[in-house]
Amino acid sequence: MHERKDDMKRRSDILTPDVLRRKGVMKGFEYLTPERRGAVREMENRFKMVTESFGFREVEGPLLQPIEFYQVKSGEELLAHTYTFEDTDGSLLVLRPELTPTVAYMIAKDDARLSFPLKWWSNPDLFRKEKPQKGRKRQFKQLNVDIFDRADSGRDRSFDDAEVIAVAISIFESFDLTENDIVMRINSRSLVERLFDIVDLDKNRRFDLLSLIDKSAKISAEEFGTKVEEIVPQKFSRELLQRWLSIKSLEEVADNKQLSPLSQSKEYKDLAKVFELMKAYGVSEYCEFSPYIVRGLGYYTGSVFETFDRKPEHGFRRALMGGGRYDNLTKDVGGRLDITGVGFGFGNVPLEEILLSRNIEIVPSESRADYCIVTQSANQRIDAITLSQRLRKQGKKVILDDSISKEKPDKVSKQLSRANQLNSKYSLIIFPEEWQDKKVVIKDMQNGEQQIIDISSLLETQPKSD
Amino acid sequence: MHERKDDMKRRSDILTPDVLRRKGVMKGFEYLTPERRGAVREMENRFKMVTESFGFREVEGPLLQPIEFYQVKSGEELLAHTYTFEDTDGSLLVLRPELTPTVAYMIAKDDARLSFPLKWWSNPDLFRKEKPQKGRKRQFKQLNVDIFDRADSGRDRSFDDAEVIAVAISIFESFDLTENDIVMRINSRSLVERLFDIVDLDKNRRFDLLSLIDKSAKISAEEFGTKVEEIVPQKFSRELLQRWLSIKSLEEVADNKQLSPLSQSKEYKDLAKVFELMKAYGVSEYCEFSPYIVRGLGYYTGSVFETFDRKPEHGFRRALMGGGRYDNLTKDVGGRLDITGVGFGFGNVPLEEILLSRNIEIVPSESRADYCIVTQSANQRIDAITLSQRLRKQGKKVILDDSISKEKPDKVSKQLSRANQLNSKYSLIIFPEEWQDKKVVIKDMQNGEQQIIDISSLLETQPKSD
Repeated sequence: MHERKDDMKRRSDILTPDVLRRKGVMKGFEYLTPERRGAVREMENRFKMVTESFGFREVEGPLLQPIEFYQVKSGEELLAHTYTFEDTDGSLLVLRPELTPTVAYMIAKDDARLSFPLKWWSNPDLFRKEKPQKGRKRQFKQLNVDIFDRADSGRDRSFDDAEVIAVAISIFESFDLTENDIVMRINSRSLVERLFDIVDLDKNRRFDLLSLIDKSAKISAEEFGTKVEEIVPQKFSRELLQRWLSIKSLEEVADNKQLSPLSQSKEYKDLAKVFELMKAYGVSEYCEFSPYIVRGLGYYTGSVFETFDRKPEHGFRRALMGGGRYDNLTKDVGGRLDITGVGFGFGNVPLEEILLSRNIEIVPSESRADYCIVTQSANQRIDAITLSQRLRKQGKKVILDDSISKEKPDKVSKQLSRANQLNSKYSLIIFPEEWQDKKVVIKDMQNGEQQIIDISSLLETQPKSD
Repeated sequence: MHERKDDMKRRSDILTPDVLRRKGVMKGFEYLTPERRGAVREMENRFKMVTESFGFREVEGPLLQPIEFYQVKSGEELLAHTYTFEDTDGSLLVLRPELTPTVAYMIAKDDARLSFPLKWWSNPDLFRKEKPQKGRKRQFKQLNVDIFDRADSGRDRSFDDAEVIAVAISIFESFDLTENDIVMRINSRSLVERLFDIVDLDKNRRFDLLSLIDKSAKISAEEFGTKVEEIVPQKFSRELLQRWLSIKSLEEVADNKQLSPLSQSKEYKDLAKVFELMKAYGVSEYCEFSPYIVRGLGYYTGSVFETFDRKPEHGFRRALMGGGRYDNLTKDVGGRLDITGVGFGFGNVPLEEILLSRNIEIVPSESRADYCIVTQSANQRIDAITLSQRLRKQGKKVILDDSISKEKPDKVSKQLSRANQLNSKYSLIIFPEEWQDKKVVIKDMQNGEQQIIDISSLLETQPKSD
């Protein structure tokens, strides 16, 4: 402890204003001005509105979590990019890099009490100690939407898969993006496993092939072909695989002689049902089957999906969001029940990037003030405050002009110009004579119209009931 | 790195389900179930509603901040209770224990661009590595409300002081607490300094006396008296001090012969004006002058205030919230302008404690579903989904019964009982025959009334405009 104090003292000796201002920059983190905070809150409002319109409920957990929650599934690479520190009792805590283990733990600890299925959403702050770059930050928000159920519930999973995908699409729509902007690419990891059965691949080759498909967009077609040859030496198997990778819709699987056995599988029928349900949700224009969507290694066990910008050249090149079905959710956090889930993580940053590329502004609803109160004379300062409070009791947003605290308020025109900058709906101007008659001047800041009105008429509306 | 891997492997070897479940408990942190998350969000909604009704705007900053931001003002004690991390470049970051340095930095880095005064609010997550106890958590939320201004703006500070105090009281009122529940105790640190001038105390004794007054509630009257004698040996000075500490209202200062010189000071007049303005805000029933409120050491330079439970025996004994005026805000984070501010920090935990003691529940507004959709036959599953989407396009919250994903849906009565548990306003029951006639049964879940209605009548309302 003593050493640390000395160390800190040494550091603070060199804390010039320039050093402090530079220290504060915090690359990869963001300071949210009122404008930016308004946009971030509006995004969350829309997440809330959409998810709750489907009956999802919001949850949250601690920002710090035990390192053990991430050691099994997340793997070494994620942990190497995680903010870790030692707690007072010697245990290691991390700033959560993802929400899934937290939510899994919430289920594991209460699994006897909870009534499944659970439909949960959250918009947590997450942290990754990696190099900041376009579309990636060190602290970021990620919408999580999931349906969790007992593996033995006897419900048809396709309905949950479809509902979660419909929620994701509705989120995009709530920001005025359409099927012309984005495409939802859907596949099934378990169907891919059936294909691998036919191709006759052992476990190691499956692993290698999944990794290869996962990064196919990042390498050349030639390199991809060479790598496939290495992993799948048999010509027949390779042709089958290439046929599969050229498929553009699920129907083609059934129509193709070599692949048609796949179409008899339960996995195929489940995925076909998801596509059928997307029609019921009225969003099939967004949806495409894509054999290239596999969502990396491990983890997913059924439907997988990712959303892409249809015009990536000016927009966003990587997946905007992605998700899928996973089994045995709570095993790694001490759960006793077999829980299956389907859901997605949707980073706020990619969403903002595509909106920016479309010049779509995120305008907060209901952020405007109803009234700015302008006083001509310092004699009405107390009256102005009293009026402001009476209006607030009616549920109004009321701003007193800043110059009320000067010995002589600023000129009325200057105060009105500030009200205009603040984007207030109306200004109420208190002139001494009118005030005597219990009247004020109301100015519509939109069209500039002014009229003298009775103060009582402003207060006529029913007070807001609690 | 290799050592760390080994270490992690060793740890994970012993990760039995019991160990994992215990690791997850995280004392002092909270997992927010939908019910709890709803209450926390509702609190924030009311903070937003009240602060914005006064024209305050929301800001936020990174959860991690450079340790240097806390070294000057916060002192060693706070830093010892702070979660600290080493970043990739070797610099030390902390999980912010308070928001003020972050906000100060936001002002310092943009001081030439910002238009003062700034009225900002925030409800940040803060962290303290201390022993969890009643009313204190390791991760907690704290409402921050501040008005910042240039020291040279020429505005009368009392107006800002009064507005900030009025906001704090309105926050309590928005949770149905009244002047019978809470008291706002107000004092002025600069007025106390004028008193110390008269008492003729040197800097060290001022420091000791402030500390003593600050902790007076925690020690016996006898001990307090003894300590005062040590710090203020002169009998005359001590009597003056005791007179001051017995004062119950500012008027008594003017009426008292020994103290009346104080009432001629600017500091007295400023504080008197704050009390006068509290009347204009209609909240003077909440406000009391209290010589015992000094808000600890350093930091504050003008008005100081704290709110207490009027019935602490069953409620909350410590201050529910506190704040005051401080000068030279941005100096410690590299600022160039002299910025003065007034504001408060208001922990969510004390607020929840007093509400609990009054049996006041925090009920989220608008959290109920409009419709639960119930199907009698699996044949209408697709229809049910289509109907749900059409209703959502009207802005409705719609939940499809979970058993829609079963081969045969649960009995209608069972589905209705679930709709009841979910607290839905209505259920829409799809029977095959009625559906043929484009009708459904609507059940009012409040009074149990049912009727058959045309589906079109549900969809008649204008679609929600974007």
